Amino acid sequence: MVERDARIIKDLGLELKYAVNTHVHADHVTGSGELKKKLPKCESMISNVSNAKADVKLSDGDKIDFGSFSLEVRSTPGHTNGCLTFVWHDKGMAFTGDAILVRGCGRTDFQEGNSETLYESVHKKIFSLPSNFRLFPAHDYTGQTVTTVAEEKTLNPRLTKSKTEFKNIMENLNLPYPKQIDKALPANMVCGLQELQS
Amino acid sequence: MVERDARIIKDLGLELKYAVNTHVHADHVTGSGELKKKLPKCESMISNVSNAKADVKLSDGDKIDFGSFSLEVRSTPGHTNGCLTFVWHDKGMAFTGDAILVRGCGRTDFQEGNSETLYESVHKKIFSLPSNFRLFPAHDYTGQTVTTVAEEKTLNPRLTKSKTEFKNIMENLNLPYPKQIDKALPANMVCGLQELQS
Repeated sequence: MVERDARIIKDLGLELKYAVNTHVHADHVTGSGELKKKLPKCESMISNVSNAKADVKLSDGDKIDFGSFSLEVRSTPGHTNGCLTFVWHDKGMAFTGDAILVRGCGRTDFQEGNSETLYESVHKKIFSLPSNFRLFPAHDYTGQTVTTVAEEKTLNPRLTKSKTEFKNIMENLNLPYPKQIDKALPANMVCGLQELQS
Repeated sequence: MVERDARIIKDLGLELKYAVNTHVHADHVTGSGELKKKLPKCESMISNVSNAKADVKLSDGDKIDFGSFSLEVRSTPGHTNGCLTFVWHDKGMAFTGDAILVRGCGRTDFQEGNSETLYESVHKKIFSLPSNFRLFPAHDYTGQTVTTVAEEKTLNPRLTKSKTEFKNIMENLNLPYPKQIDKALPANMVCGLQELQS
């Protein structure tokens, strides 16, 4: 999407201040590095805990200022240790990465996955937001792009369960090993710019 | 998307009042008929001019009431004679079908396509909306779902041109014949319920 997104930013006469990563992805490579090549003023961001390279390292409670707005950084580990959720209070929105998906959640069976940690993150840091807040997850496999706190608190088939049941569900998903993980992880540790590694 | 959408409607405890068609599509089959099977209270809608079967036939200037809201029906022919755009004034939104797409527009080289008619429709019925109105087109091939009147009035590579230039562009697209048109057109004339034809 880098070509498309850089085009829109230029067409609208905007300046991309930050490329903000929710976490070190397992199965696809971040576009931050490529965006920085096309838009040199852009700075990449990722959590400090991730140990990945980026221009700005984020921690729980940080604010990301842009224009007259601000995103609150919330640490939401469980899928990976460095997973962050970004809350745009003014607009009633949050960007959850893979911590919660529409009627689902990120896997906890690779990288630093831990189902109990993920359960705590979602319940304490996401479900504690106002119920009308819209949640924009990093993935959906049926074309959906948004859900709400209210929807997931009542309809999420995993996260409405008890922590014990959740742990049991997550331990028995029997999903295949992510296809691209051995390529994607090293690339994402350097914001998608593989050449920086050497 | 019928399974997915019927599930969301049921999960949220909503009642689907209408399945509203912008036009008789050429290359895919409307889900109206299948939605009506799953949600029997739902009525299908399409333009009167299309000559397609539906529960409710719409004409330019009609209002579609739902809850405390209303959509204004605007006739926007050119891609097909029966193409409609639905304007949600309260929310600053319009659903344009194939009359205008993100930086593009529907084809005018099959069905009842007419480039000069389409040009008039877009300029008189869509570009006349307030510039901040969001436009939701029926298609995009890069994952975009929304544009604005302002964006398309300044950035649409076809519709910012003169009518003569537009006609010339549309006559020289050299696109292949729609793959599914011979199946899709008859199906869409009966809201996707092929069995009604016999």
